[in-house]
Amino acid sequence: MALVVQKYGGSSVADASCIKRVAQRIVATKKAGNDVVVIVSAMGDTTDELLDLAEQVSPLPPGRELDMLLTSGERISMALLAMAIANLGHEARSFTGSQAGVITDSTHGKARIIDVTPSRIREAIDQGHIAIVAGFQGVSQDTKDITTLGRGGSDTTAVALAAALEADVCEIYSDVDGIFTADPRIVPAARKIPRISYDEMMEMAACGAKILHLRCVEYARRFDLPIHVRSSFGTREGTWVVSDPYTEGTEMEQPIISGVAHDRSEAKITVVGVPDKVGEAASIFKTLADAGINIDMIVQNVSAAATGRTDISFTLPTADSSTALTALKRIQGEIAYESLLFDDQIGKVSLIGAGMRSHPGVTATFFAALADAGVNIEMISTSEIRISVIVEQDGVDAAVAAAHRAFDLDADQVEAVVYGGSGR
Amino acid sequence: MALVVQKYGGSSVADASCIKRVAQRIVATKKAGNDVVVIVSAMGDTTDELLDLAEQVSPLPPGRELDMLLTSGERISMALLAMAIANLGHEARSFTGSQAGVITDSTHGKARIIDVTPSRIREAIDQGHIAIVAGFQGVSQDTKDITTLGRGGSDTTAVALAAALEADVCEIYSDVDGIFTADPRIVPAARKIPRISYDEMMEMAACGAKILHLRCVEYARRFDLPIHVRSSFGTREGTWVVSDPYTEGTEMEQPIISGVAHDRSEAKITVVGVPDKVGEAASIFKTLADAGINIDMIVQNVSAAATGRTDISFTLPTADSSTALTALKRIQGEIAYESLLFDDQIGKVSLIGAGMRSHPGVTATFFAALADAGVNIEMISTSEIRISVIVEQDGVDAAVAAAHRAFDLDADQVEAVVYGGSGR
Repeated sequence: MALVVQKYGGSSVADASCIKRVAQRIVATKKAGNDVVVIVSAMGDTTDELLDLAEQVSPLPPGRELDMLLTSGERISMALLAMAIANLGHEARSFTGSQAGVITDSTHGKARIIDVTPSRIREAIDQGHIAIVAGFQGVSQDTKDITTLGRGGSDTTAVALAAALEADVCEIYSDVDGIFTADPRIVPAARKIPRISYDEMMEMAACGAKILHLRCVEYARRFDLPIHVRSSFGTREGTWVVSDPYTEGTEMEQPIISGVAHDRSEAKITVVGVPDKVGEAASIFKTLADAGINIDMIVQNVSAAATGRTDISFTLPTADSSTALTALKRIQGEIAYESLLFDDQIGKVSLIGAGMRSHPGVTATFFAALADAGVNIEMISTSEIRISVIVEQDGVDAAVAAAHRAFDLDADQVEAVVYGGSGR
Repeated sequence: MALVVQKYGGSSVADASCIKRVAQRIVATKKAGNDVVVIVSAMGDTTDELLDLAEQVSPLPPGRELDMLLTSGERISMALLAMAIANLGHEARSFTGSQAGVITDSTHGKARIIDVTPSRIREAIDQGHIAIVAGFQGVSQDTKDITTLGRGGSDTTAVALAAALEADVCEIYSDVDGIFTADPRIVPAARKIPRISYDEMMEMAACGAKILHLRCVEYARRFDLPIHVRSSFGTREGTWVVSDPYTEGTEMEQPIISGVAHDRSEAKITVVGVPDKVGEAASIFKTLADAGINIDMIVQNVSAAATGRTDISFTLPTADSSTALTALKRIQGEIAYESLLFDDQIGKVSLIGAGMRSHPGVTATFFAALADAGVNIEMISTSEIRISVIVEQDGVDAAVAAAHRAFDLDADQVEAVVYGGSGR
């Protein structure tokens, strides 16, 4: 008998009939002899509707109250799901994040999980019940206030609870069949990846693949918890995210490249004519950090000897652009840079693959493919298992397709039909 | 500095603009130098919408999960209200029933409050914050599960918290100006009652006046807590419900009759031809009690000597009729009664007034007024401060108007404009 943790996103519980279908899947898992713990997101657009209500009442609602408001979303879906399961003749008990022992810090809106003490969940399982837990939410250790975990929060709840309960697997359900070698909307020949390592999955998540959130994969890696990403609209195997995907009974040799990810949500800012003195770059990035902005890639040109000045370019989430530009304007007097350039018509294309460590020439092949496709490279960043380039946004599709083909990722047959977000 | 507890019903927080108006009223109370604790119901039709969702998922949802679902309603309204107050520059903190220390038994759907331990509320007040508390909900002492208090639950939360906090007053806001001598829709000359005793208010509530629920008045009487029933759509004084309304600085002599209440929600069942033996009536009412039915009035005719049989009539909530009839059919063999009669076209008209104790002839005046109005009396029931009669439903309006006039309750000018339910 295994302990299976399942997480269903908002699209899987969008309405009453979706909830009933999910209930049947849960009961089938239970009937197959497993203990089942289910983490559920808010129904469909509930969160957006609640945010809309908040906006009607206050332009800048306090984080504590916004969390109190938003957590009602999972309360509704989890209670309905428990009812639907009861209707099929099985005992289900729903628990809020607080009741499930999800203990967090006090950072409302993006709290971090500090500890998970799932005694009530364990008790429910021991009594033969199916436990339904609200995703995305917890309770602050210090203030006992309700908190939310931010983007991808329900996935993180699922993995954290699965780790605390020492579950055998954490299944993440959405409307997508698994992790693909590229977005099938761009590359129709993209293939579903049967197994992928935590490291590669983290790079994929960080580079724009939206199926799993980075935090949840980090958490799973720390506890060596297998994640199975699959669709709630079918029964096919999805993608397994594990520590070492190529030694556990699979015959395949490790591929050089696991997949091609892309991201259109970033913008580029260039600080032009920064005096080439020690500490100037540091104060630019300190200013941005103080403004709470996460920088992605950074490029600094060699200083032009004649002028003693240099240009610094970096990418950041487009949504943070105006905050960043305002913060940089404020220090123009202090730093004495010449001007700011802003470009939100960019895209990032990333090759991810643990196999590239042992294969020289990956960069050359990648860049040649982009050149053949007529795509110009604006910025480059690399890690052990990833190469990312910034290109103009109109070139993203061509770049992804060219890279996919160059590394022999194209399937013989088109396999995927849907590819989209995974809710929260 | 006083401690004021305010309760706002669903119609007072129906949408964003209502919530903002309520926030202004709360802040005004705070600015006037009071500590303020607010109990809030779910917005407008939220509860009905949630019930509708539950019905789509399951015909008979478990009580525990239904309570989990319904309590999300107050969570939404209280968070929004706290945001609206923050927007006006005051600190507000929202608390669930559980966080506010509302401890109940485990009867889901109609839990009774066992204890109130409002340490977090007191802490919030001590810090100068406005505390917003979810009405209608608590947490079970034994199972730690979320419970709801049933009909009139938010009023009960308000009074229970006010008592535990030793508040100076509990203000119950709705869309009605206060308690009236009769329903102004039936008697346009009805007057707002400035002060009324707990006992009279309990009889009024039990006899169909929907402004305050019986449980909440019982609770207030036990703790001698003044209730002020008023409208959230104006600033006029409403009705004070207190222990002794006629000695505290009012010049008025105690009126004979405080008001005329009516109720169209009951039906009458007659068990015809019950053998006139010891214990037959007892087993009829035991059967009904076992079926969970609350009986209101009972009349038994004197046994007809010739037949040795008698008829027993009683009234009950119309909604419980089919359950009651089914239960009675089941024992027909055992009791050997002849038949059942059912009539849901009845109404109850009640005179309430602590003054009738010292005024003989009230019954005579009441019955004469009904006779003059051409209304036939079917059943009669009395208490120290109340006389109720069952009449045919079409005669209710005429009976109420005639009684109101006979006891000089008509105002010189029409005062009331709205009269309706008070939410939950």
